[in-house]
Amino acid sequence: MQLKSLAAAIAMTSAATGLGLATALDNPAHAQETYEWKMVTSWPKNFPGVGQGPERLAELVEKMSDGRLTIEVYGAGQLVPGFEVFDAVAEGTAEMGHSASYYWKGKAPAAQFFAAVPFGMNAQEMNAWLQYGGGIELWNELYDQFGVEVMTAGASGVQMGGWFNKEINSVKDLEGLKMRMPGLGGEVMSRMGTAIVNMPGGEIFTSLQSGAIDATEWIGPYNDLAFGLHQAADYYYYPGWHEPTVMFEAIVNEDAYNELPADLQAILQTAVHDVNLSVLNEYTARNNDALQTLVEEHGVELRRFPDDVLAEAKKHSQAVVQELAETNEMAKKIYDSYSAFQDKVENYHAISEQAYYNARNPDGDTTTTQQQ
Amino acid sequence: MQLKSLAAAIAMTSAATGLGLATALDNPAHAQETYEWKMVTSWPKNFPGVGQGPERLAELVEKMSDGRLTIEVYGAGQLVPGFEVFDAVAEGTAEMGHSASYYWKGKAPAAQFFAAVPFGMNAQEMNAWLQYGGGIELWNELYDQFGVEVMTAGASGVQMGGWFNKEINSVKDLEGLKMRMPGLGGEVMSRMGTAIVNMPGGEIFTSLQSGAIDATEWIGPYNDLAFGLHQAADYYYYPGWHEPTVMFEAIVNEDAYNELPADLQAILQTAVHDVNLSVLNEYTARNNDALQTLVEEHGVELRRFPDDVLAEAKKHSQAVVQELAETNEMAKKIYDSYSAFQDKVENYHAISEQAYYNARNPDGDTTTTQQQ
Repeated sequence: MQLKSLAAAIAMTSAATGLGLATALDNPAHAQETYEWKMVTSWPKNFPGVGQGPERLAELVEKMSDGRLTIEVYGAGQLVPGFEVFDAVAEGTAEMGHSASYYWKGKAPAAQFFAAVPFGMNAQEMNAWLQYGGGIELWNELYDQFGVEVMTAGASGVQMGGWFNKEINSVKDLEGLKMRMPGLGGEVMSRMGTAIVNMPGGEIFTSLQSGAIDATEWIGPYNDLAFGLHQAADYYYYPGWHEPTVMFEAIVNEDAYNELPADLQAILQTAVHDVNLSVLNEYTARNNDALQTLVEEHGVELRRFPDDVLAEAKKHSQAVVQELAETNEMAKKIYDSYSAFQDKVENYHAISEQAYYNARNPDGDTTTTQQQ
Repeated sequence: MQLKSLAAAIAMTSAATGLGLATALDNPAHAQETYEWKMVTSWPKNFPGVGQGPERLAELVEKMSDGRLTIEVYGAGQLVPGFEVFDAVAEGTAEMGHSASYYWKGKAPAAQFFAAVPFGMNAQEMNAWLQYGGGIELWNELYDQFGVEVMTAGASGVQMGGWFNKEINSVKDLEGLKMRMPGLGGEVMSRMGTAIVNMPGGEIFTSLQSGAIDATEWIGPYNDLAFGLHQAADYYYYPGWHEPTVMFEAIVNEDAYNELPADLQAILQTAVHDVNLSVLNEYTARNNDALQTLVEEHGVELRRFPDDVLAEAKKHSQAVVQELAETNEMAKKIYDSYSAFQDKVENYHAISEQAYYNARNPDGDTTTTQQQ
C-alpha cells in the first residue's frame, strides 16, 4: 500500500464516520449502548385491559428509543409466578414488572394505600394525589428499602361489587357466605360476617362453579366476562365500594434503572405515564359493551347493594383503614397524606364530578333492575 | 509519517468511531438532524394548569430526544394572538400549537365536539372515546383539510357554572342578564333569555367589575382565583353543565410532523399523552385549595344551580347539539360517534363512577351553602 492510498483511506473513513463520531462524542451513552430488558407481570399474557398495558409500554419504549431499549413482556407464570413479580424485580431476575401493590402487603402493609382503599379515592383522584399531592414520592420512599423504583401504570376505574349466588337484601344476607375478596375490602367483608377465601384469579371460576365459594369479586364487566363468571353466579352487584379503582404499578430494579442514560430514563417514565391513562381508557371504553352482553345475552341479574350494606361497609372501612395506618410509622405517614388529599378532593368533586353526574342523570341508574 | 504509524492511526480512528458508525448507518436521520420548533398557545405564558401543559411537553420532548427536538413555547400574543394559533400552525409560522378546538368553530363547526359539549362527556369519558372509540381518528379527519395533525393534550375536568352578580333562584332570573359564555353553552344560555357577550379571557375581569357584563364563566377555582373574579361578583355557581370538561388540543403542522423521523414522532405523541393526563391531574389536585380560599378568605357565596335551571339547560342543550350535527355531513358523522359512545359510557358510569360517588357521599354537597 502506498502512503497516498493510506491517506485516502483515512480521509474516507473520517468522512464516512464523521457524523457518527460527532454523535458518539456528544452523547456517548446514547450511541453506544443497547438494553434488553425483561418485564414480568401478574396477568395472563395479553389479558384485556391490564394485560395490554405492559404490551403497549414495550412498544412505545422501543419506538421512542429507536430500539436502544427493548422490553420482553412475560405473562404470569411464564418466567415467575404472578405473586413473585416484586421479588423478581427486587433481585434483578427481571429488570421490570407490572403488577398491583396490594399483593405486597406481606412485605409492606402500607403498600395497600397505593392500590385500592375501600371508600377511598377513584382513578381521577388517585392520579392527582400521586402526581401532584406527594403520593408517588411516598410510594418510592416505601419501596426504596427493596431497591425498587415505582411508577403509576394504569387504573381499572370503579370496579363492580362482585358476583353472588343469591340476592343480598340486607347485611344479614352476607353472614356465612364464603367469598373471594382480597385486601382491605376482604377484611371489611369479614367484619360483616362473610368468610373470606383468597385465591389467584385463575382458580375463581372453578371454585365458584363447584360451590367451594358463594361469591367473588374480580374486576369489572370487561374482565369478568372474559373469565366467564356469569356461568357460575347469577347476581352481579355494584358499586365496587371496596375498589373505587385499582391502580396498577410499573416497578423497576433500581440498579437497572440507574444504568440507563438520562434520555432512556425519561423515555421509560413517559411511556409508563402514557400507559397509565391508556389502561383506564380501555376499561372505560369497553366495560359497557361487556355489561350489555352479560345482561342481555347471558341474563345476568344486575343489582345495587342495599343502602344498609353500603352504610355498614363504609363504617367498617374507616376502621380497617385506620388500623392499617397504625401498623407502623410509614403507614401513618402515607395515611395522613392520603386522607388529607381525599378530604379535599372529595369536597371539590362533590360540586364538580359528582354534581355533574347527578345533573346529567338525575335518576341514577335507570337502565337496570334495581333493588328498592 | 511512517507506514506503521499511519496504519495505527487508521486502526484508532476505526476503534473510536466504530460504534458511532454503526449508529449513523442504522439510523441516518437519528444521528444527523436536530429540530428546533416553535409552539404557539392560546394561554398566558406559564398560566396555572392549561399553561403548564405546553411547558411540560417541551421539557419531556427535549429530555427524551436528548436535545434532538427542542420546542420553544410562546404565550398568547407573544408570537401570534391566542385566537390565531390554528392559522399559525396550518401556515407553518409555528410548527405546533396548544389550544382548544371550539375556538375554530368558524372554520369547522364540528370542532366543538372535541372541546366541550353541554351535558356531554366528562374527562374520563372523552379520553376513552378519543383513544378507543374512534374520536381521535375523526378529529384528525376533520383537521386534515387544513394540513394539521391533532392530539388530545389536557383536560380541565368538570368546570364551574360561572360567576353571577345576583342569586339565581329560577330560570326567570337568567332573563336579560349579560353573560360571557363561549361556544355551545352560550347558545343554550341565550335560549334561556341571557344576552351572550364574547370576549377573550383577559377582558373578563374589567367587564365584570365595570358592570358591562353581569355574569361570566371561566374555568374553575384554580384559574378563576388567579383571575381575581371573586373581586367582581359574589355568587359562584355549580356544576358546569356547559363544560363537563374542556379537552385541550396539541396541533402540529403536517409537513413539519412528516419531516420527523419515526422515533421523534413517537416521542412527540407520547409526550402529548403524558401532558393530557398531567394537566387534568394538576386541576384535580389544585381546585379544592383554590375553592377553599375563595369561600373562606374571600367570602364567595357558593351555590348549586336550581333544578329547573339544570332541567331547562339540559333540554336546550340537546336541541343545540342536534342542530350542530345537522350543519354538514362531517358534523353528523362526529355527532353519531360521540352520542353513541356517550349513551354507552353514561350507562356504565351510572352503576360505577356515579353510583360510587353517591355511595361514598350520599348527601352530595354538604360543605357549602346550597339552594333548596
